[in-house]
Amino acid sequence: MSPLKGATPIYFGSFIVTPQVFHTTPLTFALVNLKPILPGHVLVSPRRVVPRVTDLTPAETSDLFLTVRRVGRMVERVYGATSLNIAIQDGVHAGQSVPHVHAHIIPRKAADLDHAGGTDAVYDLLDGNEGDLGSAFKNAVPTEEGNQSTEAGNGNSVNSGRRSRFPVVDNDARKPRGEEDMRAEAEMLALEMENEPLD
Amino acid sequence: MSPLKGATPIYFGSFIVTPQVFHTTPLTFALVNLKPILPGHVLVSPRRVVPRVTDLTPAETSDLFLTVRRVGRMVERVYGATSLNIAIQDGVHAGQSVPHVHAHIIPRKAADLDHAGGTDAVYDLLDGNEGDLGSAFKNAVPTEEGNQSTEAGNGNSVNSGRRSRFPVVDNDARKPRGEEDMRAEAEMLALEMENEPLD
Repeated sequence: MSPLKGATPIYFGSFIVTPQVFHTTPLTFALVNLKPILPGHVLVSPRRVVPRVTDLTPAETSDLFLTVRRVGRMVERVYGATSLNIAIQDGVHAGQSVPHVHAHIIPRKAADLDHAGGTDAVYDLLDGNEGDLGSAFKNAVPTEEGNQSTEAGNGNSVNSGRRSRFPVVDNDARKPRGEEDMRAEAEMLALEMENEPLD
Repeated sequence: MSPLKGATPIYFGSFIVTPQVFHTTPLTFALVNLKPILPGHVLVSPRRVVPRVTDLTPAETSDLFLTVRRVGRMVERVYGATSLNIAIQDGVHAGQSVPHVHAHIIPRKAADLDHAGGTDAVYDLLDGNEGDLGSAFKNAVPTEEGNQSTEAGNGNSVNSGRRSRFPVVDNDARKPRGEEDMRAEAEMLALEMENEPLD
């Protein structure tokens, strides 16, 4: 059962993501990731679908980042991490793939990316196709229009001119998760949010 | 003349950065960068020196990100950009080099990093020594204790285990800016903030 069973559908850009959502406020929601870079990699977005941070009202801005702070503390605890990367690609020329404001929260711990090149490899991963939410959703999640991308599997970004530092074989090797995986994680995290202090 | 002449010194970690500061609120300040990755790369920090986002009060969190939103809009306008990268390394295992919460704001435009590898090269730059604020400040800015780093010029990070993807020669070629350069930019941006709507 989804933590939000029966609720109004929640949109991330043009995609319905309700089964992935583990936390909502009146202005903000948090969702688990289709292709997490590291365990506990989640996203926080405003309920209103707007592309840029400047499009948010002050109330939406405050609520978004108070939610980032609280969700970040929760995933750091639940996934046994010691730090967090928080990143927003605010606009297409900053690498944004879904035109809906979203903060990445990535729990970090010592040596967690040593196999991939060290602490800062997170950014390569975020900007390889692993973090390319646009093509990931296109390739894996039916949209409300019911269509699937015709680009499935080619690893291209929806933003022309973006470059991946990953060989295509590596992208192909990382399949997006299934909806049941995401739903189970969302249910677990929804319960954990109940244990997280409000302030 | 500094925009904040006569004001209480403002600390970024253990460093006095008052001449670099172009905007303050009761809880937050914004400063120009010693080694900007791109024109208009600035930082926004809480006035209170705390290392983690979770250490902030809700009021500090709201004010920090309302300031990020407003400063981001200003630098995007002033530097003729079309997007922004916003990033926080929240804790040492996320690559944080100065133990004081700080959001990087980096104005972006089409093809601005084509010479360096494309849109997403910003992350390599952020996490090469260009963005390594700890060693940059150590190498260039006298601290309140009046000492200079003994590591000057070796390009090492203050966080052991971090890796730069830049050859050392490239790091050596990018000298930190002088205080007068930073002061002049801070004065210009302080005036621009006066033209920026509050909301």
